[in-house]
Amino acid sequence: MILNALFLCGLVAHDPVAVLPQTPSPVRSFLERGLGDAQAYTLLRELCTTAPHRLAGSAGLDRALAWGEAALQRAGADKVYRVPTMVPHWDRGTTARLELATATGTEAPPVTWPILALGGSIATPKEGIEAPVVRVVGRKQLAELGARAQGAIVFYDEPFDPSKLSVGEAYGGAVWQRGSGAIEAAKLGAVAVVVRSVTAALDDHPHTGAMRYEEGVPKIPAAAISTKGAADLARRLEQGVVRVRLQLDCQTLPDKPSANIVGELTGTDPSAGVVLLSGHIDAWDIGQGAHDDAAGCVHAIEALRLLKKDGWRGKRTLRVVLYTNEENGVRGGLAQRDATPQGEVRLALESDSGGFAPVGLSVDAAGPLKEAFEVFGRELQPIFAGTVVQGGGGVDVGPLKERGAVVGLLLISGARYFDHHHCALDVADNVHPRELQLGAVAYAAWGRFACDLDEAVYVAEARLKAGSAAK
Amino acid sequence: MILNALFLCGLVAHDPVAVLPQTPSPVRSFLERGLGDAQAYTLLRELCTTAPHRLAGSAGLDRALAWGEAALQRAGADKVYRVPTMVPHWDRGTTARLELATATGTEAPPVTWPILALGGSIATPKEGIEAPVVRVVGRKQLAELGARAQGAIVFYDEPFDPSKLSVGEAYGGAVWQRGSGAIEAAKLGAVAVVVRSVTAALDDHPHTGAMRYEEGVPKIPAAAISTKGAADLARRLEQGVVRVRLQLDCQTLPDKPSANIVGELTGTDPSAGVVLLSGHIDAWDIGQGAHDDAAGCVHAIEALRLLKKDGWRGKRTLRVVLYTNEENGVRGGLAQRDATPQGEVRLALESDSGGFAPVGLSVDAAGPLKEAFEVFGRELQPIFAGTVVQGGGGVDVGPLKERGAVVGLLLISGARYFDHHHCALDVADNVHPRELQLGAVAYAAWGRFACDLDEAVYVAEARLKAGSAAK
Repeated sequence: MILNALFLCGLVAHDPVAVLPQTPSPVRSFLERGLGDAQAYTLLRELCTTAPHRLAGSAGLDRALAWGEAALQRAGADKVYRVPTMVPHWDRGTTARLELATATGTEAPPVTWPILALGGSIATPKEGIEAPVVRVVGRKQLAELGARAQGAIVFYDEPFDPSKLSVGEAYGGAVWQRGSGAIEAAKLGAVAVVVRSVTAALDDHPHTGAMRYEEGVPKIPAAAISTKGAADLARRLEQGVVRVRLQLDCQTLPDKPSANIVGELTGTDPSAGVVLLSGHIDAWDIGQGAHDDAAGCVHAIEALRLLKKDGWRGKRTLRVVLYTNEENGVRGGLAQRDATPQGEVRLALESDSGGFAPVGLSVDAAGPLKEAFEVFGRELQPIFAGTVVQGGGGVDVGPLKERGAVVGLLLISGARYFDHHHCALDVADNVHPRELQLGAVAYAAWGRFACDLDEAVYVAEARLKAGSAAK
Repeated sequence: MILNALFLCGLVAHDPVAVLPQTPSPVRSFLERGLGDAQAYTLLRELCTTAPHRLAGSAGLDRALAWGEAALQRAGADKVYRVPTMVPHWDRGTTARLELATATGTEAPPVTWPILALGGSIATPKEGIEAPVVRVVGRKQLAELGARAQGAIVFYDEPFDPSKLSVGEAYGGAVWQRGSGAIEAAKLGAVAVVVRSVTAALDDHPHTGAMRYEEGVPKIPAAAISTKGAADLARRLEQGVVRVRLQLDCQTLPDKPSANIVGELTGTDPSAGVVLLSGHIDAWDIGQGAHDDAAGCVHAIEALRLLKKDGWRGKRTLRVVLYTNEENGVRGGLAQRDATPQGEVRLALESDSGGFAPVGLSVDAAGPLKEAFEVFGRELQPIFAGTVVQGGGGVDVGPLKERGAVVGLLLISGARYFDHHHCALDVADNVHPRELQLGAVAYAAWGRFACDLDEAVYVAEARLKAGSAAK
């Protein structure tokens, strides 16, 4: 595209992309400076190589916390400190094997499928669990399973619904299998569950993630199978009974100490409160947690660096929080809430949707605050990152609502996110430096705006909320 | 992100992405159906494997045209026809070599850099051109070059400016080296040019593209060097004189017949005119032209298929055009203009910015038509594809302005585009199926809206333009 004879001859005077409206504005020039001095990807590589595996309780997470402190200091934070908390400590172990069970003495090579233990799962006995597989696609089939689940391994195989406009919605529609599948199957007498990886991609990578048990329901082991593995298993089940052997040696150990890492640019007005930009520094123990959520941490650190370098200081304090233990406990989110005085934080934003191109901001506000963001969002139109929608924040900032904060989430182009999520593909090589930097400059711009926004707007939004709540 | 203990415990009731506003609307359900029945990527793979190389004059382009006819018929077009035109025929040949010139008898292995002839370049003599290299970074250094260019190979090495908000702008700032570099160097007495690939990526892939000569200025050979190759060459030049040998055996042959492929869904009101959705079916002879511009063709074909399948028929005729010869001649664009009666086409859209996620629409309208699109764009907010900017159309539809058409361009997330542009990386494997389908459904939605839009809006926009022109 773009350069061709017409262009060369002057018949078309311009690159079509280059003629977007270019009203000079302070925001525009801030964005330009932020893209021209890009360090986000360097930071991401540092974190992803310093501590690729950062699950709560691991030595990798400890290294990541130390890196986060140093990175915030280098970025120019006025002060850097820890908000300590205990975190769960689940360990994957070294064995995760799902094998076709064959009659003793059979000489054929073993048939196996790529799996990973789900986070929080108990182990199987050392020799594994051997049982027939029963496949269920959707809650309706689960409800109809009845006695067939007894003594079986339940294989959850509901795929993403591609018709959902948001891939997050498709994920939301499928992730129950991973989260509560073991509980539901155990209630029916199943001995283990195998869950189709929660992704739209069709490949050989199993995707891990959190699962849970319920008081009073037997705990049974749970593993994720790759989507191609799921397709193969489904095909075999169409042909008849399939018996498999599942072996996992994961375990839950005693809680360990950890902390959120916090860095601040102190505001000029101590009574004006705080605006929080955050990501989570823990990650699953597969891949490098590059999109989930090294990207969000880097967005926040780079935003602070760019704002400091710009000579800016807000009316409100800009507080960057690198949360611990988002993935399997949210102890970081709860600890941050406990460390926050009522009314201190005006707005708490999180970036936890990957390092792809930013598209907008979700904010839990319906009135004057949302309108203020919408108007400001037009300044981000040249990078197509200015759409404001009313919606929730990330899960780490959720608890700050109890302290009076409005929460929000940096919105990121989502089509590719779940291809990489919680699997071996979530590595720095799969993050695009320019897209990551766009996220950082957008995050910085939203944060700067929120730090300097008239207090009356926050007050009016809070009144509106209080009014709605009173009704 | 997303699923964690808070979510599991019901403290956070939702996936943050899933709570975007979901006002039911006919557009929303159309988008859902279009994402739920995705065939765009299958079409793209067909075209990219049927005819990976589709440069004007090639047998590959002929195969692609036949594929386009068949694809439009399968999609349900009421009629499919050709708009014939002659096209240039430049052939790359088989030799493109840039080698460090060493003294005769030296036994060291040859040092070479990855290059490709630029489209339209003449060949070197068979034994090549040996000359010292002179590096210039930017127009200012070129202007200061003077006699040092005499007898030399000018090495253009100006990179992308990362501070540009649009990557298209960065491209626009660097592509002059490729387009007119040979002319400017020849005026100074240079014997050939080597141009840094026009991309922000740092890798080993040279990017081809069109260059031109000027009447009365000597024609000299022109090649693109990979960005890593450029970095190596620059480093060697810092250490002293570098003599190289350049060999190219490309050539320009007599023009050949070709055609645009057109498919239509006939409108219900013959007097209401036509809305055009287009892409270009030619491509460079490197990679598969997947993003540039199989994606645009597939966007348009899939849009027609989805609209037909939906039982929709517009007031205006929907005309899909797969343009020939965008890359090195725009003969298709000119032929389409010549075949179009004055006033027939109300709006002519092009998709030629890749198969990444759509972000909006550029439209060459300032008044009521732009406003109508802006209002409609809100319907595309759930997929973050609704931003409307005043700007140009693609180069193929440009000539239709002479026939009274308003032109526009489907806007696509741009950060990755020039990584793949005109090089070996532009293959179907680097197109994401979901992103491609999002582009197709957005294109369909814009086209459908434009087909049924009140004629008064087009009339008012035309009056506004006539008024501006009269001033």
